[in-house]
Amino acid sequence: MKAKKPIRVGMVGYRLMGRAHSHAYRDYPFYFDTEMIPQLQGIAGRNEAEVRAAADKMGWASYETDWHRLLERDDIDLIDIVTPNDTHAEIAIAAAEAGKHVLCEKPLALSLPQAEQMLEAVNKAGVTHMICYNYRFSPAVQWAKKLIDEGRLGRIYHIRATFLQDWLMDPDFPLTWRLQKKISGGGTLGDLGAHLIDLARFLVGEFQEVTGMMETFIKKRPLGTMTDNLKGRAVSDQWGEVTVDDATLFLARFHNGALGTFESSRFSRGNRAGNRFEINGEKGSLRWDMENLNNLQVYLHEDEPGLQGFRTINCTEEEHPYAGVYWPAGHIIGYEHTFINLVSQMMDGIAAGYNPQPNFEDGVKNQAVLAAVEESVQTRSWVHVSSFQ
Amino acid sequence: MKAKKPIRVGMVGYRLMGRAHSHAYRDYPFYFDTEMIPQLQGIAGRNEAEVRAAADKMGWASYETDWHRLLERDDIDLIDIVTPNDTHAEIAIAAAEAGKHVLCEKPLALSLPQAEQMLEAVNKAGVTHMICYNYRFSPAVQWAKKLIDEGRLGRIYHIRATFLQDWLMDPDFPLTWRLQKKISGGGTLGDLGAHLIDLARFLVGEFQEVTGMMETFIKKRPLGTMTDNLKGRAVSDQWGEVTVDDATLFLARFHNGALGTFESSRFSRGNRAGNRFEINGEKGSLRWDMENLNNLQVYLHEDEPGLQGFRTINCTEEEHPYAGVYWPAGHIIGYEHTFINLVSQMMDGIAAGYNPQPNFEDGVKNQAVLAAVEESVQTRSWVHVSSFQ
Amino acid sequence: MKAKKPIRVGMVGYRLMGRAHSHAYRDYPFYFDTEMIPQLQGIAGRNEAEVRAAADKMGWASYETDWHRLLERDDIDLIDIVTPNDTHAEIAIAAAEAGKHVLCEKPLALSLPQAEQMLEAVNKAGVTHMICYNYRFSPAVQWAKKLIDEGRLGRIYHIRATFLQDWLMDPDFPLTWRLQKKISGGGTLGDLGAHLIDLARFLVGEFQEVTGMMETFIKKRPLGTMTDNLKGRAVSDQWGEVTVDDATLFLARFHNGALGTFESSRFSRGNRAGNRFEINGEKGSLRWDMENLNNLQVYLHEDEPGLQGFRTINCTEEEHPYAGVYWPAGHIIGYEHTFINLVSQMMDGIAAGYNPQPNFEDGVKNQAVLAAVEESVQTRSWVHVSSFQ
Amino acid sequence: MKAKKPIRVGMVGYRLMGRAHSHAYRDYPFYFDTEMIPQLQGIAGRNEAEVRAAADKMGWASYETDWHRLLERDDIDLIDIVTPNDTHAEIAIAAAEAGKHVLCEKPLALSLPQAEQMLEAVNKAGVTHMICYNYRFSPAVQWAKKLIDEGRLGRIYHIRATFLQDWLMDPDFPLTWRLQKKISGGGTLGDLGAHLIDLARFLVGEFQEVTGMMETFIKKRPLGTMTDNLKGRAVSDQWGEVTVDDATLFLARFHNGALGTFESSRFSRGNRAGNRFEINGEKGSLRWDMENLNNLQVYLHEDEPGLQGFRTINCTEEEHPYAGVYWPAGHIIGYEHTFINLVSQMMDGIAAGYNPQPNFEDGVKNQAVLAAVEESVQTRSWVHVSSFQ
Repeated sequence: MKAKKPIRVGMVGYRLMGRAHSHAYRDYPFYFDTEMIPQLQGIAGRNEAEVRAAADKMGWASYETDWHRLLERDDIDLIDIVTPNDTHAEIAIAAAEAGKHVLCEKPLALSLPQAEQMLEAVNKAGVTHMICYNYRFSPAVQWAKKLIDEGRLGRIYHIRATFLQDWLMDPDFPLTWRLQKKISGGGTLGDLGAHLIDLARFLVGEFQEVTGMMETFIKKRPLGTMTDNLKGRAVSDQWGEVTVDDATLFLARFHNGALGTFESSRFSRGNRAGNRFEINGEKGSLRWDMENLNNLQVYLHEDEPGLQGFRTINCTEEEHPYAGVYWPAGHIIGYEHTFINLVSQMMDGIAAGYNPQPNFEDGVKNQAVLAAVEESVQTRSWVHVSSFQ
Repeated sequence: MKAKKPIRVGMVGYRLMGRAHSHAYRDYPFYFDTEMIPQLQGIAGRNEAEVRAAADKMGWASYETDWHRLLERDDIDLIDIVTPNDTHAEIAIAAAEAGKHVLCEKPLALSLPQAEQMLEAVNKAGVTHMICYNYRFSPAVQWAKKLIDEGRLGRIYHIRATFLQDWLMDPDFPLTWRLQKKISGGGTLGDLGAHLIDLARFLVGEFQEVTGMMETFIKKRPLGTMTDNLKGRAVSDQWGEVTVDDATLFLARFHNGALGTFESSRFSRGNRAGNRFEINGEKGSLRWDMENLNNLQVYLHEDEPGLQGFRTINCTEEEHPYAGVYWPAGHIIGYEHTFINLVSQMMDGIAAGYNPQPNFEDGVKNQAVLAAVEESVQTRSWVHVSSFQ
Repeated sequence: MKAKKPIRVGMVGYRLMGRAHSHAYRDYPFYFDTEMIPQLQGIAGRNEAEVRAAADKMGWASYETDWHRLLERDDIDLIDIVTPNDTHAEIAIAAAEAGKHVLCEKPLALSLPQAEQMLEAVNKAGVTHMICYNYRFSPAVQWAKKLIDEGRLGRIYHIRATFLQDWLMDPDFPLTWRLQKKISGGGTLGDLGAHLIDLARFLVGEFQEVTGMMETFIKKRPLGTMTDNLKGRAVSDQWGEVTVDDATLFLARFHNGALGTFESSRFSRGNRAGNRFEINGEKGSLRWDMENLNNLQVYLHEDEPGLQGFRTINCTEEEHPYAGVYWPAGHIIGYEHTFINLVSQMMDGIAAGYNPQPNFEDGVKNQAVLAAVEESVQTRSWVHVSSFQ
Repeated sequence: MKAKKPIRVGMVGYRLMGRAHSHAYRDYPFYFDTEMIPQLQGIAGRNEAEVRAAADKMGWASYETDWHRLLERDDIDLIDIVTPNDTHAEIAIAAAEAGKHVLCEKPLALSLPQAEQMLEAVNKAGVTHMICYNYRFSPAVQWAKKLIDEGRLGRIYHIRATFLQDWLMDPDFPLTWRLQKKISGGGTLGDLGAHLIDLARFLVGEFQEVTGMMETFIKKRPLGTMTDNLKGRAVSDQWGEVTVDDATLFLARFHNGALGTFESSRFSRGNRAGNRFEINGEKGSLRWDMENLNNLQVYLHEDEPGLQGFRTINCTEEEHPYAGVYWPAGHIIGYEHTFINLVSQMMDGIAAGYNPQPNFEDGVKNQAVLAAVEESVQTRSWVHVSSFQ
């Protein structure tokens, strides 16, 4: 048993991602053999009743109605940002300037220049930073990474990835912040496509060029607000314009020669969380599906003829990254564990004074791909990602 | 191209199995590089209008309304028996005595003694004989057999097998011949369970002892007749007693120490043809499902830790038995191909003068297990299969 | 936000199940909107170094090296028993007599009479009691229960259930407590089969009669001890006799006329946690698999012809029991959540003064089935479960 | 039983597709209740030894070493073209001018203008014509079409389709005709992508605009020839340039507003015949996979909350198009049956004097999409398909 060292956390925001992060801080020391003990020191939100209730419910020791107050406090080491996307930059830069470590939800910013400012700020401050691309931290995805890094797939030829949902298909679903470009910075591309881009960067490599298309299937919606769990609530009988995409599709070429198709959509019936990829390499292939996130399908060409086929691997064995800290083989884990694993990286980074991946640099590179896709949609042509970096 | 040699076939019966067999004779020389060319010489049936139409439809050169006539003809080498079970023995024995090769549908007979007489008859006559346990001839099942024979699974510990259907669940489904013990010899046990017993004997080995239970969920049905494709038609408004089982379940111990559970049922909603097994051995496991009969699931313990999982093998590769004569890898075959493959064995047997498996000896051994299960149900205890042999 | 009320827990034992329970107490108030807040007051274990480390790691406020001490403490309301099976009865009876609520791991006892004494004790003391058949609390299983209770499946004809593992297949795996009948009370039957019996009782109804078979494939093993996560460690070079079953199979008839096959095995390669069932009813069928525990397969005969098929339902929607407290649809939960849900029932029971199910009465009925199966194995015949109650 | 009417077929070519077509002609009258009886009158090929052997093996009554001879014969009603793509136009136009009905393998031609000439020729001659996009004729795909036409999916938002193979990944695989643009007209796009385009046109509607990318991963290969079943054989130690694509990916917008991603590749390990699609509509979704072609996955939003999920429908029921002529429910069919079903359409068309779909008009429209994709790859921009029609 190592000696315990508290890491005092302040979190700005408290909705769906706030719950996922709060839970991860609480659960992390139970599972991991660590000296770093996150302390749920305080959260910030504008609505006092709501923020107080959230603090109470999720176990935070205090709350603030102005996030600047959290940054001023000496008893906070790490600022966690789970607010709508238009506020990430301001908070992250201020936090870095206040000398706090920073964990920020994705996408990093509303634009590439904004993202670059954020990276500059954390670098200048020398604080530890991460961005919350949590799906990397599924044991199955980590195992995929390891297999690829070991050369088990050889040269990568293809990735095809989708993130499909269907919660937005009802025309009466209200115009929440996620559907307003000035707040969210984008629709499915920034929300779902950004995850796909991160998985592709993690597993395949850097993007070279892209060309895409976007569509907003339902163009006007009743004004409203978002509640937890991807639910919304109309707040008036007025209607507003949807300023983000309902679906974005794009093709990509990677620097290593791999080809990719990417598709993010909130209009795909029957897909609640259809975050899936298939990767084909010279020597093998991989398939993963978030709705069944413990499993990795692995095809190895080296298998004997007649015995070649995709193996369904329940990544709950001791060999699988992170799986050993949880339960015996075959006893699955869930969505929330991706956050616990990510928090373990953040804690290790703070403890050892380095930046685990994915961090703000990954956030910037991701944002460059997002920007290139948007540019390609507008110009109806291929766009080099490098032109954004 | 080998020189062609005709094998002149006469078939008694012409319903569902008659179709499957007729098709197999026709299709066999297209796919297989063979000199043996089955000639569809004649079929027999009591209803002249129906048998004439069947002959015409399925391409038989002639028909008879009395099956004895087929046996008397010099232009017939092989008698194929696809009649209800109560007539198998009489026809098969007569055919053997007439010097015809015999292919008989399963189960071989209504009872073990009857089956033994049939075996004696074909042995005495020195004709080639087979019994139509067709599922052995799925490439995936043949591949399973090969893996087991090569020791890839090591010692076998378990088999669990089911054959589940749901076509009989409507209480208005009529009392066809399959539901009358005096004609069928049994219900799901003889019809479906017999297939499971054959697969278990093929893949695991001989049965040592069994104990079972039976149930007839719906005990009276309207009188009626069976049409093709497991459909029935009421022929009157009278009702009769169902004298066979709707479901039979049994446990088994094999001579090699393996344990088995077996279940045949026509009351399993959603299972149209749920003929499935899982076999567990010291070094690996196998899973198969007839509704997806091209696939074999293979688990090999020798796989690296972390990469262990059931492989889904589409058994359409050249390595897979029989698959090479059909289509390229990934291009699946269907139910009817199990019969074509079986016919190829029968033709090879006739050509080379030996009895391929499964033959009447397998039919007898299968019948001994059926008899032991029935006995165990009546005595509510374990019954040694050897006491029936 | 309801007012908080602490429930002070003492736990005897701290290995695999101790971890699962400890975590559930910690996590429960985060997810559930509850006033009941479990306090991890103290744990007991004989090895001081180990129990201290466990208390520290899992967040328990204190520890004892003698479990009697926990029972004597005024600051403990609930005793949780996660010790080997031979100690359940003594601890549970003492805890009840001390006026503590009791949550006990399964199986309840080493024998039916012992189980009955335990039930009598908790009834006499008037404390709240539960037994930890946790798989009932998967949202998918709860949903299955609801569908059956609503009559969506109609009359139940069949259940076939397996709990298959493969962690014991290495002949060098040591002779841990689970493999010694005097401590564990039984092998796969009590460990795995008991879960199947509970699921069958929950979903189908009470058992009427059973007949079974048992096998110990590897009869001698090196002496050793169990560590966490189903791993063992040899403690000497001596060998001892395995006194429990490696596999138990049984057939069953239920009071409502349903038929069942049950199989528990630790010798089924590739099955890490193959806890699966299929239930067939007059109007529909269900399938579930613990290795993918969020999904329920549902077949409804009322579906239009041509559109009938098993639906894969990811039971993460608000409609699914317990799922609403966790994450948005499609965001899966894991093994540990079955315990959190069970704890929520225990807390509700204590709060409202009733015994949630499954409780000690279920433990007794389960033990009666276990006893009947064992008796049937010895007598090689069918045994009425009622003769044990 | 209808009166029989022979349709006398002449076939040019005899390799893989020749086998599939020959078998379909032979098998069609066995399954379908039809008066049209295809007569396998003669085949043509340049290599006399090979064509003679093929005729003998597949049951053709005669052979020619010059395809013009087949067209001159009075005893032939229908010309079936299964030659490499560069010869389709010449043969089809000559056949039409000779007054023969024409069935042509896909893609129709090497270019859109050539395809248009072919359509003009058959229209002018007034003969019946079809193009062999056989996957339409899987019962599951036909069922998908029916569900869409009935409005069960509502407005279509998305299609994503792939046809993935891996037989070309070995760098030593020779430079067969399929890899030479002057003969094949294209690589994966024309071979595999054309099938996807046909399925999309059939199920979703007409393409409006596309943008794509192509890649040839292995640019030089040993000279060689193709044998059956996608195997090749080197014929010298010389190397030649691969002039077709190994993979083509494209995005599409349909006239009805649907969006699509399409991907054809011969470099996708583990995918033997990965012809798959998912279609998402306002009210439901569909999934299909050729490697398991009997199954259609159907999601219907109208299903009750909590019971929504993809249904796995084994399309072998009487309700499913074409399935009724084969076997009982659950007894699957294979790849070859798509050709038998297509032949049934061709025969019906000839009998009734109309052009079934897909015909040369579909061939032209398909070619227009192929041409637009190629143009988009060269111009690196979106291309309107209408500009090619």
